[in-house]
Amino acid sequence: MKVVDKIKSVTEQGQTAFSFEFFPPKTEDGVENLFERMDRLVSYGPTFCDITWGAGGSTADLTLEIASRMQNVICVETMMHLTCTNMPIEKIDHALETIRSNGIQNVLALRGDPPHGQDKFVQVEGGFACALDLVNHIRSKYGDYFGITVAGYPEAHPDVIEADGLATPESYQSDLAYLKKKVDAGADLIVTQLFYDTDIFLKFVNDCRQIGINCPIVPGIMPISNYKGFLRMAGFCKTKIPAELTAALEPIKDNDEAVKAYGIHFATEMCKKILAHGITSLHLYTLNVDKSAIGILMNLGLIDESKISRSLPWRRPANVFRTKEDVRPIFWANRPKSYISRTKGWNDFPHGRWGDSHSAAYSTLSDYQFARPKGRDKKLQQEWVVPLKSIEDVQEKFKELCIGNLKSSPWSELDGLQPETKIINEQLGKINSNGFLTINSQPSVNAAKSDSPAIGWGGPGGYVYQKAYLEFFCSKDKLDTLVEKSKAFPSITYMAVNKSENWVSNTGESDVNAVTWGVFPAKEVIQPTIVDPASFKVWKDEAFEIWSRSWANLYPEDDPSRKLLEEVKNSYYLVSLVDNNYINGDIFSVFA
Amino acid sequence: MKVVDKIKSVTEQGQTAFSFEFFPPKTEDGVENLFERMDRLVSYGPTFCDITWGAGGSTADLTLEIASRMQNVICVETMMHLTCTNMPIEKIDHALETIRSNGIQNVLALRGDPPHGQDKFVQVEGGFACALDLVNHIRSKYGDYFGITVAGYPEAHPDVIEADGLATPESYQSDLAYLKKKVDAGADLIVTQLFYDTDIFLKFVNDCRQIGINCPIVPGIMPISNYKGFLRMAGFCKTKIPAELTAALEPIKDNDEAVKAYGIHFATEMCKKILAHGITSLHLYTLNVDKSAIGILMNLGLIDESKISRSLPWRRPANVFRTKEDVRPIFWANRPKSYISRTKGWNDFPHGRWGDSHSAAYSTLSDYQFARPKGRDKKLQQEWVVPLKSIEDVQEKFKELCIGNLKSSPWSELDGLQPETKIINEQLGKINSNGFLTINSQPSVNAAKSDSPAIGWGGPGGYVYQKAYLEFFCSKDKLDTLVEKSKAFPSITYMAVNKSENWVSNTGESDVNAVTWGVFPAKEVIQPTIVDPASFKVWKDEAFEIWSRSWANLYPEDDPSRKLLEEVKNSYYLVSLVDNNYINGDIFSVFA
Repeated sequence: MKVVDKIKSVTEQGQTAFSFEFFPPKTEDGVENLFERMDRLVSYGPTFCDITWGAGGSTADLTLEIASRMQNVICVETMMHLTCTNMPIEKIDHALETIRSNGIQNVLALRGDPPHGQDKFVQVEGGFACALDLVNHIRSKYGDYFGITVAGYPEAHPDVIEADGLATPESYQSDLAYLKKKVDAGADLIVTQLFYDTDIFLKFVNDCRQIGINCPIVPGIMPISNYKGFLRMAGFCKTKIPAELTAALEPIKDNDEAVKAYGIHFATEMCKKILAHGITSLHLYTLNVDKSAIGILMNLGLIDESKISRSLPWRRPANVFRTKEDVRPIFWANRPKSYISRTKGWNDFPHGRWGDSHSAAYSTLSDYQFARPKGRDKKLQQEWVVPLKSIEDVQEKFKELCIGNLKSSPWSELDGLQPETKIINEQLGKINSNGFLTINSQPSVNAAKSDSPAIGWGGPGGYVYQKAYLEFFCSKDKLDTLVEKSKAFPSITYMAVNKSENWVSNTGESDVNAVTWGVFPAKEVIQPTIVDPASFKVWKDEAFEIWSRSWANLYPEDDPSRKLLEEVKNSYYLVSLVDNNYINGDIFSVFA
Repeated sequence: MKVVDKIKSVTEQGQTAFSFEFFPPKTEDGVENLFERMDRLVSYGPTFCDITWGAGGSTADLTLEIASRMQNVICVETMMHLTCTNMPIEKIDHALETIRSNGIQNVLALRGDPPHGQDKFVQVEGGFACALDLVNHIRSKYGDYFGITVAGYPEAHPDVIEADGLATPESYQSDLAYLKKKVDAGADLIVTQLFYDTDIFLKFVNDCRQIGINCPIVPGIMPISNYKGFLRMAGFCKTKIPAELTAALEPIKDNDEAVKAYGIHFATEMCKKILAHGITSLHLYTLNVDKSAIGILMNLGLIDESKISRSLPWRRPANVFRTKEDVRPIFWANRPKSYISRTKGWNDFPHGRWGDSHSAAYSTLSDYQFARPKGRDKKLQQEWVVPLKSIEDVQEKFKELCIGNLKSSPWSELDGLQPETKIINEQLGKINSNGFLTINSQPSVNAAKSDSPAIGWGGPGGYVYQKAYLEFFCSKDKLDTLVEKSKAFPSITYMAVNKSENWVSNTGESDVNAVTWGVFPAKEVIQPTIVDPASFKVWKDEAFEIWSRSWANLYPEDDPSRKLLEEVKNSYYLVSLVDNNYINGDIFSVFA
């Protein structure tokens, strides 16, 4: 979706839009860290996030890759910066076509900095001279597909700021006129350069409106987190530093914590004043850290840890081809990234699986599905790679995970347990000790208010429901006992399969069971999570493969623990169990 | 669906299939009476119903029309008889193509009786000589589309029965061999000629199995309801009458009631014996009356007034193109026939409206929508055509309807109220007296067991839900007051429109509200009834038009009552009101 439309819709609902800017890190670890932080920040519900353009070969490719992961895996509306520096038209089109095919709809069109080591911007052969050329090109070649944002300079472009720190009135006016040209050429949103004098920004907005620039103008807020960095950046941008700010920072300049705290305070006050003047959106330059941005938004009351509201039980996709997606199998609940990657070919929801047609197939397993960020790999190594002498030692690991003693799991991409799991963790611990190795679960929920913490979703005014669900590995003996016992519990439905595809089930092969649903005013019943045999059969390959690739393989090749894990993988069944009595059933009674 | 598949599925569930046969009546009134009876019988859930072939010009057309109404309006799986008498191949194909296009999948292929006034069957020029030819033709020309039933003669075909009432062993055997040929040619089901000696039927089934006839053989049961009729029919079919039956009937032959009662008893005993021998389906010749058929099935415990089970809150369509239909707007709840007629063009559900695509349009209103059977017209005349001096008199009529004093309503095709309406009829009476003229309603239901009487549907094991719903006409003043009051009830959503299309609503124009849904083991949530603005706007034309065509027009042209009703029609709003709080809301509080 175009960012300008999202901002308008947030504003119409009487809320404030906020957004975060990131840049491409230089190292692989840096990239993984960035995604962890971004994931956390995105859970607060920013209207969009943007990623700056890494000019030059490999950095450009990295930017494209990061943008695609942001949109498709982190699931946040993504805006990619694009500059003219060293970019002949073919490279520009390559970048635009790449993000278009990845479902990204937003570009920030910039001229860009001078090439490395030079003072002045140089037009490359076969490239563009300025942002206006770029805007014109995007609109003429890609029609209305992209939302185009351009930069606004409240103090005029640094190139025209004189030695005294000010632009002449003529330069300022011609800069404004140039901005108008960019908007007239098709830009639909303006994000400003950083500034520290709020009055200058407010005057700028007013001046824009005077000459007929009517699109939203979003203030770019750079929190001060480090004194030297602040001076360098302000100097680079030639921005005016209010005397009050200098006076406050001078005495604390060597105390990083104090500077950061003051930076949050100062930015909060700036934002308050800006919002009081009727501006309804804020753009935060994060410099790839999250603390200051979160602090400012908390101060403003725009985010609230206790009230993270979810529109669905899982994060709704941002990719323009998937925004209508509203149903998923429960099996990948702890591996949403793997799910997104394995259903990439279903781009045209609702015409892919679960929508109008059921024909789309899952992609096959790839090494990518088992690749883990280094941080997570280390955690798994610490927590899971211990000598395993018997199956009891394996059970112990699963039990520890369920009762909250471990932060990682080979079967999960998430940190620790989902909040709702805590409701049933003692019972989970017990069945794990008893040989039912759980990897996924949800408690039953009967008409909880849709804005309840932990289990609510979809906003206030509705009621949400869940059927209790358990997914686990167990031996054939345990499975037989369970099948026998379940005959006394007619509300229990199950399916089980082992690595050799032996199938045991008491439901039809095409039965699709909605296990999470919500009833809202003036809406159809929404059913975001299902249990279905067809995708269970696909999931089972991944679930069994994890025994090897994400656990056994972390041991040395001849380690007996490794052999034990391979035996479990080759002999156990994966079982999916639903208690259809969500009103007064008890899924654990079948294990008693 | 093919009848043979339905019988197999009923049998697999351990139940007994039963079915009813009708013939085309000679008068228009007779046809309407037939449909009323059929509607009642179909509510008991027969596996199918069949209609005999009216040989000859207009009767043939009538058979085609009745068959289509059975399948599409009564919504029962329909089997049409087709005979070779006076039927050149073009007429046969016309009949088959007509029923195929009307979504009927079942034919009973017969040679037919001799032409009127003749003793022997004569093959018509360009026609077929026997049922076998007809079966061959249907299979070769229509492939696997049709289920083909043929007649079985437990005592051999009457043509070969000798003067002593018996066929020679050779005739019997050659008759059996001919039946085998019909089955080998593609018939998949056998329904027998009537008989009164159960042993003969059981021997016949056994003989069929011996020569490799493996399809289901359904006994045709003709209840005796009148002594003379019984003798005539038995003579015509040359069937053996057991001495016990003659002895029992002789003393009571002039007492019609006694004969009918004994007929029910005798047929019940025959059926018990047949079922005890492992036969799992019964076919009842009704002769277009219902009492004997109902009596026999009650005696056998196959039907139970208190346990009419519904697969959906409305009768599921039988038309092969519509069998997957599982959602309807609530507006036509009391006018299902009008709904079916107005959505005829949506043949290919789920690709019509409410399915994969929302593009299908309702047909426009036709005179047919307002045509009523004479019986109903008379009832409306009696109950609704009284002098109306003021709006209070109009309100009084609506109130009487709600509290159960009237059996008819201009806005309903049904007899009296739906059972669930009785739960709220006192409250309905009150608001009608207060100027809110209700034409449709449902109480709220929060997790009632799906096999509860009156409100349950979908079979046992699930839970059903409803949002309270009211639909009524009221003046602009009343509407304004209601809109004002509803601000204090955030769970209330409404839409209202008058004849001039002025629109008042507090929901989005594309909001679709599921007002009836059910949660079942191992299933997605089923949502059979919805409230949606798009179809409300279509329905309102019909609802307003009923004021004139089904009420005002029943008065003489200059009657002041007629003028009053036209005024109401032209000035009132039609209002659709939902209380989205199905857990502890009270829809009537907004009227307090």
